[in-house]
Amino acid sequence: MAISNIRYGEGVTKEIGMDLQNLGAKRVCLMTDKNLSQLPPVNAVLNSLAKYGINFQMYDNVRVEPTDQSFLDAITFAKKGEFDAYVAVGGGSVMDTCKAANLYSSSPMSDFLDYVNAPIGKGKPVTVPLKPLIAVPTTAGTGSETTGVAIFDFKELKVKTGIASRAIKPTLGIIDPLHTLSMPERIVANSGFDVLCHALESYTALPYNMRSPCPSNPINRPAYQGSNPISDVWALHALRIVAKYLKRAIRNPEDREARANMHLASAFAGIGFGNAGVHLCHGMSYPISGLVKTYKPKDYNVDHSLVPHGLSVVLTSPAVFAFTAQMHPERHLEAAEILGADIRTARIKDAGFILADTLRKFLFDLNVDDGLAAIGYSKADIPALVKGTLPQERVTKLSPRPQTEEDLSALFEASMKLY
Amino acid sequence: MAISNIRYGEGVTKEIGMDLQNLGAKRVCLMTDKNLSQLPPVNAVLNSLAKYGINFQMYDNVRVEPTDQSFLDAITFAKKGEFDAYVAVGGGSVMDTCKAANLYSSSPMSDFLDYVNAPIGKGKPVTVPLKPLIAVPTTAGTGSETTGVAIFDFKELKVKTGIASRAIKPTLGIIDPLHTLSMPERIVANSGFDVLCHALESYTALPYNMRSPCPSNPINRPAYQGSNPISDVWALHALRIVAKYLKRAIRNPEDREARANMHLASAFAGIGFGNAGVHLCHGMSYPISGLVKTYKPKDYNVDHSLVPHGLSVVLTSPAVFAFTAQMHPERHLEAAEILGADIRTARIKDAGFILADTLRKFLFDLNVDDGLAAIGYSKADIPALVKGTLPQERVTKLSPRPQTEEDLSALFEASMKLY
Ligand SMILES: NC(=O)c1ccc[n+]([C@@H]2O[C@H](COP(=O)([O-])OP(=O)(O)OC[C@H]3O[C@@H](n4cnc5c(N)ncnc54)[C@H](O)[C@@H]3O)[C@@H](O)[C@H]2O)c1
Ligand SMILES: NC(=O)c1ccc[n+]([C@@H]2O[C@H](COP(=O)([O-])OP(=O)(O)OC[C@H]3O[C@@H](n4cnc5c(N)ncnc54)[C@H](O)[C@@H]3O)[C@@H](O)[C@H]2O)c1
Ligand SMILES: [Fe+2]
Ligand SMILES: [Fe+2]
Repeated sequence: MAISNIRYGEGVTKEIGMDLQNLGAKRVCLMTDKNLSQLPPVNAVLNSLAKYGINFQMYDNVRVEPTDQSFLDAITFAKKGEFDAYVAVGGGSVMDTCKAANLYSSSPMSDFLDYVNAPIGKGKPVTVPLKPLIAVPTTAGTGSETTGVAIFDFKELKVKTGIASRAIKPTLGIIDPLHTLSMPERIVANSGFDVLCHALESYTALPYNMRSPCPSNPINRPAYQGSNPISDVWALHALRIVAKYLKRAIRNPEDREARANMHLASAFAGIGFGNAGVHLCHGMSYPISGLVKTYKPKDYNVDHSLVPHGLSVVLTSPAVFAFTAQMHPERHLEAAEILGADIRTARIKDAGFILADTLRKFLFDLNVDDGLAAIGYSKADIPALVKGTLPQERVTKLSPRPQTEEDLSALFEASMKLY
Repeated sequence: MAISNIRYGEGVTKEIGMDLQNLGAKRVCLMTDKNLSQLPPVNAVLNSLAKYGINFQMYDNVRVEPTDQSFLDAITFAKKGEFDAYVAVGGGSVMDTCKAANLYSSSPMSDFLDYVNAPIGKGKPVTVPLKPLIAVPTTAGTGSETTGVAIFDFKELKVKTGIASRAIKPTLGIIDPLHTLSMPERIVANSGFDVLCHALESYTALPYNMRSPCPSNPINRPAYQGSNPISDVWALHALRIVAKYLKRAIRNPEDREARANMHLASAFAGIGFGNAGVHLCHGMSYPISGLVKTYKPKDYNVDHSLVPHGLSVVLTSPAVFAFTAQMHPERHLEAAEILGADIRTARIKDAGFILADTLRKFLFDLNVDDGLAAIGYSKADIPALVKGTLPQERVTKLSPRPQTEEDLSALFEASMKLY
């Protein structure tokens, strides 16, 4: 299991110019999105680049919830720039786009599908050397600063997929909790739900020693290895922080302690799921995002419709954990307890029900949209949602309980309305 | 903070030949000690090397508790062999020797003192590229498979010191709990005490944001950064495992669950202290080992006198934590509780006393020698022990409470007898 380099602390962003000097970088690509380019996190980076005289070009055309096309635009920019280092300042959308730009500009002869996860792409292993990439997360959500994963919406297929390789993991993640202070309420909430699901899914994922096939050569093993004693430490720790701080972080933008803790929890959960993997909430979320109709979430300063990633994973979580609990009921019950359920008189066979109920209350308290129906889906969409989940076997096969198409249908149906 | 690659599982050692093939290794150096060369862990590695047709040379001349001379012998072997990869199979003595052999054979013009920690050596930063090193720990103690540290006994000065650089951190640690089954009782105990102290010291070390000087350029920051929210996770988790499993692991060689858990705890605590650092128990342990007279510990199949590292750190632990507690009493109390103390009616100002008492009981239950007197020291040795501690400022300055020479004297004196 490989774990990333991270640096944590209020204000540590100011050192980024020095880090780039230490790397000997002569042409730096700074990536961000249009909204962030006007906000304090990007400012802090620009100040440090200026102070240390770093030569850079800025790309602020990252699409929130990136697509194959928006990845390609960034890749074109990267190829032209011939950069020797990358800096990504933003949420998962920016960090993932920057990973893809670094990868394909370092492997200019590759076809875009070469590195995209099979069966959608070819899933080729990355053997070219990449440039250093410093990731500066500004949401408290994806943990992308610690993972070798880049996710995008494949427009043609109307489904999200990604690239997964240790090679695209950032060289350094700079976790500066000051950056979380500018996040509006719903961005804190939705990115926080992503942390919640990363922790819950990696803790309940199929155990590493039950995964099959397990390629005999270690080099061929996937990044996602199933739950294991090391990822468990991170998942549980992240879950405890979510339980303690997420509500506070959402409700009070001045609550530095809560926002800083969520920022760290995001990296912790990233380290956990980056090794163990996620399963059904994520697998089912990709068509939920990909098939979006007209939903425009509050607080997102963008001009296209989208289902924020964290929302797309959390809406199915009550149904998913009610379904998976029979395989590891103790872990599901433990998670419910951490999230505040009183389990003193609980029966182990009710673990799934108890965790689902705890999650529903948690979401209700936080004014989350009432299920898939509230974001524009109806029963008629279920076949398409199921069809979009099937190619996500890279993650769905990590579910502790195998699922049929009927099971997936039932899970989507149960997620239409939560309260 | 950088964290290592580790692979965990019963029997995973059998893959090591494939790992070396994947690395393209053509001439491998296999290091171990004489005792281990006859035991199952080395056998398992040899079988895998044979199966994958790996060309290697074996060096089994590692000294248990290495010295500058024993490091130099291994370095000479490594320089002659012109190896392209290293495999270390053993405890900290083997892994540390192998790190040094890899470092100096990759930097053949360097003087031995160049990389040794200042003020004893020159503490130069490592800028040469090293060969891959795969570490296979066979004790559950040092966590050296996860750290950039190599410790040796500097005979001339009669004091232990070391080399500390991220560059010497193993490329991969293979944690195969089967290897712990051949450990005799006292080796389990002493290496387990090392885990205990790594966890306690890194959890109570000076917080990262109170350390000074804090070099403004990240590249110049020491490996040991002070306690921080990430190392805390590892330290606490390791401490909980020690509390639950160390006694079982010592008493019953068949208790696989306990021995496997201690093997993982050793790596967890290593990741924790490898980033946060250790402080007084370790700083004071170096002269305790270095000045050894005639002590020959039970169960160590070696022909020279030595104080096993884990024993040398744990004997001062009651005195040390009674001394440091006033700086972070809550953390000391929390540690005592994890180790089994009933703190429901405890007063916070008694935290040091309570932790010290808990440690003394723990050691008494495990038949640990009754203090420094029992391993051959008397009051008359205290000035020499203090003198040997003074150059260990790399670690002692991480103590949450600054110490004078008189304080150190008093700590050694209080550690002469424990029960
Ligand atoms: N690579 C991975 O490991 C991984 C894991 C989970 C999710 N993802 C992907 O990441 C993407 C989601 O990323 P996200 O949740 O971090 O959000 P995001 O990057 O999509 O950003 C969402 C919105 O928040 C704004 N924003 C970000 N930080 C801000 C700040 N500090 N202040 C004010 N506004 C801010 C952005 O400008 C944007 O409008 C999805 O595409 C998802 O699939 C990747
Ligand atoms: N590099 C680091 O981060 C770090 C940290 C702590 C300690 N250390 C150093 O490590 C050394 C101590 O290492 P250690 O405690 O692992 O012990 P060790 O390597 O000194 O070995 C102690 C004895 O145990 C035997 N042994 C080891 N594994 C065995 C097994 N599976 N079965 C039977 N016998 C076995 C060895 O042959 C030896 O006789 C000291 O020099 C100490 O200073 C290094
Ligand atoms: Fe996610
Ligand atoms: Fe140690």
